[in-house]
Amino acid sequence: MKLRIGYELTYAFPQPTPVILMLNVHFSRASDLERPDNIVVSPSVPVSGYRDGFGNWCTRIVAPAGRVRISSDSVVNDTGLPDSVAASARQMPVEDLPEETLVFLLASRYCDSDRLLDLAWSLFGTAEPGLKRVQAICDFVHHHIAFGYEHARPTRTAFEAYEEGRGVCRDFTHLAVAFCRALNIPARYCTGYLGDIGVPPPYAPGDFAAWFEAYLDGHWHTFDPRNHVPRIGRVLLAQGRDAADVAITTTFGPNTLESFRVWTDEIADAA
Amino acid sequence: MKLRIGYELTYAFPQPTPVILMLNVHFSRASDLERPDNIVVSPSVPVSGYRDGFGNWCTRIVAPAGRVRISSDSVVNDTGLPDSVAASARQMPVEDLPEETLVFLLASRYCDSDRLLDLAWSLFGTAEPGLKRVQAICDFVHHHIAFGYEHARPTRTAFEAYEEGRGVCRDFTHLAVAFCRALNIPARYCTGYLGDIGVPPPYAPGDFAAWFEAYLDGHWHTFDPRNHVPRIGRVLLAQGRDAADVAITTTFGPNTLESFRVWTDEIADAA
Amino acid sequence: MKLRIGYELTYAFPQPTPVILMLNVHFSRASDLERPDNIVVSPSVPVSGYRDGFGNWCTRIVAPAGRVRISSDSVVNDTGLPDSVAASARQMPVEDLPEETLVFLLASRYCDSDRLLDLAWSLFGTAEPGLKRVQAICDFVHHHIAFGYEHARPTRTAFEAYEEGRGVCRDFTHLAVAFCRALNIPARYCTGYLGDIGVPPPYAPGDFAAWFEAYLDGHWHTFDPRNHVPRIGRVLLAQGRDAADVAITTTFGPNTLESFRVWTDEIADAA
Amino acid sequence: MKLRIGYELTYAFPQPTPVILMLNVHFSRASDLERPDNIVVSPSVPVSGYRDGFGNWCTRIVAPAGRVRISSDSVVNDTGLPDSVAASARQMPVEDLPEETLVFLLASRYCDSDRLLDLAWSLFGTAEPGLKRVQAICDFVHHHIAFGYEHARPTRTAFEAYEEGRGVCRDFTHLAVAFCRALNIPARYCTGYLGDIGVPPPYAPGDFAAWFEAYLDGHWHTFDPRNHVPRIGRVLLAQGRDAADVAITTTFGPNTLESFRVWTDEIADAA
Repeated sequence: MKLRIGYELTYAFPQPTPVILMLNVHFSRASDLERPDNIVVSPSVPVSGYRDGFGNWCTRIVAPAGRVRISSDSVVNDTGLPDSVAASARQMPVEDLPEETLVFLLASRYCDSDRLLDLAWSLFGTAEPGLKRVQAICDFVHHHIAFGYEHARPTRTAFEAYEEGRGVCRDFTHLAVAFCRALNIPARYCTGYLGDIGVPPPYAPGDFAAWFEAYLDGHWHTFDPRNHVPRIGRVLLAQGRDAADVAITTTFGPNTLESFRVWTDEIADAA
Repeated sequence: MKLRIGYELTYAFPQPTPVILMLNVHFSRASDLERPDNIVVSPSVPVSGYRDGFGNWCTRIVAPAGRVRISSDSVVNDTGLPDSVAASARQMPVEDLPEETLVFLLASRYCDSDRLLDLAWSLFGTAEPGLKRVQAICDFVHHHIAFGYEHARPTRTAFEAYEEGRGVCRDFTHLAVAFCRALNIPARYCTGYLGDIGVPPPYAPGDFAAWFEAYLDGHWHTFDPRNHVPRIGRVLLAQGRDAADVAITTTFGPNTLESFRVWTDEIADAA
Repeated sequence: MKLRIGYELTYAFPQPTPVILMLNVHFSRASDLERPDNIVVSPSVPVSGYRDGFGNWCTRIVAPAGRVRISSDSVVNDTGLPDSVAASARQMPVEDLPEETLVFLLASRYCDSDRLLDLAWSLFGTAEPGLKRVQAICDFVHHHIAFGYEHARPTRTAFEAYEEGRGVCRDFTHLAVAFCRALNIPARYCTGYLGDIGVPPPYAPGDFAAWFEAYLDGHWHTFDPRNHVPRIGRVLLAQGRDAADVAITTTFGPNTLESFRVWTDEIADAA
Repeated sequence: MKLRIGYELTYAFPQPTPVILMLNVHFSRASDLERPDNIVVSPSVPVSGYRDGFGNWCTRIVAPAGRVRISSDSVVNDTGLPDSVAASARQMPVEDLPEETLVFLLASRYCDSDRLLDLAWSLFGTAEPGLKRVQAICDFVHHHIAFGYEHARPTRTAFEAYEEGRGVCRDFTHLAVAFCRALNIPARYCTGYLGDIGVPPPYAPGDFAAWFEAYLDGHWHTFDPRNHVPRIGRVLLAQGRDAADVAITTTFGPNTLESFRVWTDEIADAA
């Protein structure tokens, strides 16, 4: 299956402003790209790149004062298979977890698992450890939080999402991640493209999506408490402890986001 | 100057419990140790180690059920010089910061700088950028927060510390770090030994201390808004985004900390 | 200024052969492209991509047996300004260099700086550190090596280029890079398009060009000991330790390069 | 099995000199350490650390003028099992190799595989691809090169080692690595401790050892053409493209290595 992916963001900056962009397809999916998914900044500015501590590719620019358009348009191959996790995926004892997963057990800016310890154990402590427990978390989160863009609030933590009972996909994800960590299951936040393939319209939001991965049985597995059905055509952009680590754009100065479009559309194979 | 440093922690665990310890002197001070600062666990258990993403040495054990004592006793050499920063330490524009410092601009669990943006700019936006601005932050934090062990609360964030106006050394540090990041100054949280050398008793708490480092003029510089006077004899244990990253012990299960002692005492030179 | 850039390479492969291509414009110039600089492989084959450790975009194909044409044709915007470096660009002490520059101090396949240490210090040790010293290196290299395509030899190292006194633009670049590293100045090899704008014909070779960047005063600066005059219209393809890292094509099997054309031509603005 | 590992290097520096040290046990073996393998520098100096592009932990110091001792002494657990590779380890086609292995196919400073292409295919082209071919390489290298410390020459490449027919363990390793790469088998250079367990004295050199890993069948496997028998108790320090990437010390200025000791000794279990 081929997906046309891309975005167009338009900002207004009152003054030259440093910006970090995490808008390239993640290295684990780069081999599926038909061409480099270049970030096009207009007007053109000098660009440099680096890899952060999680392996995400980050782009640094100084946006000039005025209107700046940041865009990309590319084509990516996908298996076309829906998310799946082997039913037998067992939970690993903390002492057997690989070192590189341990940071994903710690509390972070928006996944304040330390405030959710008692709640997590009272809600999910009786669920079978492993896949079943993560699914119980996703069930709960999916039903507990009322979705609505009008509920978006960038500083909301998992604990606050639990208390307020509403949010957007990042809140669903933060809460589920925080519950996993409270239960000693490494969990990391993911952001990327997610189309509406096989989903009744008008389901897809024309925005980037958030989901998470939990570490079970020696592997990272995809979970999506917002959609809560297996989906097709996720294209990962970046992974981290939570949304603070993988903001699409981090701007170091005031600005206005004037417009924002994202596309993830199935296209016919050339053949 | 020689310092005798060490600690003795006694825990009671109802069941075997995985624990991560960050209780070794930081590699940057290893050369000052007169002997290995071994972590002694009693009863003896297998230990393994790893270096986290910040370079801190972490020790993993599975604590057995029952009473467990974790201790160390070592001697470290120190210059005996007080903290100091060159008055000319200038602030670097974000676009000139080295890549490895950028993660220390992001919000984190206890340094919720994203909630302190407006406040930070209104309080410190007129202070001269660079050393002066960081000092203004430390001045403010030192006077704004009332110190008291009875005010300790492990889930308190920088924003909450600001609102509540009280806390312990980690709260002073979190608030100052969060202000720095809100003002685009990389700042990292430090934990370690800090004795009471040259300080009127009974000033020193017999606990580990928290302070922070700010990145100015191409280097990391030490600041301590809790004590707010240049101090002698800091011995770094670990560095990270905030206290979540550098907890002395991270326990994966219920437990009771039965006793806790830390010492940092000047001793006579052998020579 | 607008430049039409592109290439056409024709290979004959006796059998299906894996090939890695580094033929996309570097991400730092992607915003200057008027359209995607797609690599067109004829006959068509599946392609996949990845980013190497230096951030270069690499394309993987398995070329079929027979004749294979690899081509691209695009348009890129350019400032039209010649190369320049501030006269005050100072050299940084090794201890102040950012971590990400340190790999560019090490010897590499074609920049055998370890064999040029004594020579480098005897030739350039009295030149003022910083920009002046790098310029002294470029002066020397420019005059020491006699240019000629008949002198091309793909295995020639910097030391051998020094001894033989002849070569092509990659040899000029390797020797200058190796001298810089021997003198503790980080230097990286660059490859890309370079037209003949403002240069008396028939100067430009219709080939890709090599130049290098030296790290001075906190930034990478462009130097070109082959041309040795400020040039207009460089379009970077890839950067690395030397030509081994940024070969336009790396073929894993026998083959014949039947034809090779590169163009970098100024075109009239559409406006 | 427990191994006591450590080293003591004494340098004389005529002036303050930046040094990069790669003297910590590799992260993949860190969990086997009983305590942090601190690098002790005497006299004490400020120390900072970073992880290079291969994941090796590097330590930066500015060594003061005069005599400087760099040492460590630690204890590491080991399986006690000899090197082994499954006889069935098959070679992977280049197009199936993971991206992160591809850099280990390229020529590098001391592994000038581009000069050994014809020779490699004529010598090993008829050996069965995969494990057998790598073993044929190791056989050849082991017998072709005469070992002798008097043959050490730090600038010797693989091609030169082949021509000269003599060298030390790094030359054996460079030549075997270069042959592997010439035959499209990813190979990386390793350095570390290697004791004399189960080997008739006086076999062990009291020095760090070099060996390599080849990528077969989806995994990295250990080979040691110098010793050419399965050995027990390797403790990895660092991995890279060749010895240029993993020098124990990289000094940026003149100096004298006054003494050098390494130990890797089996010790009795405490129990």
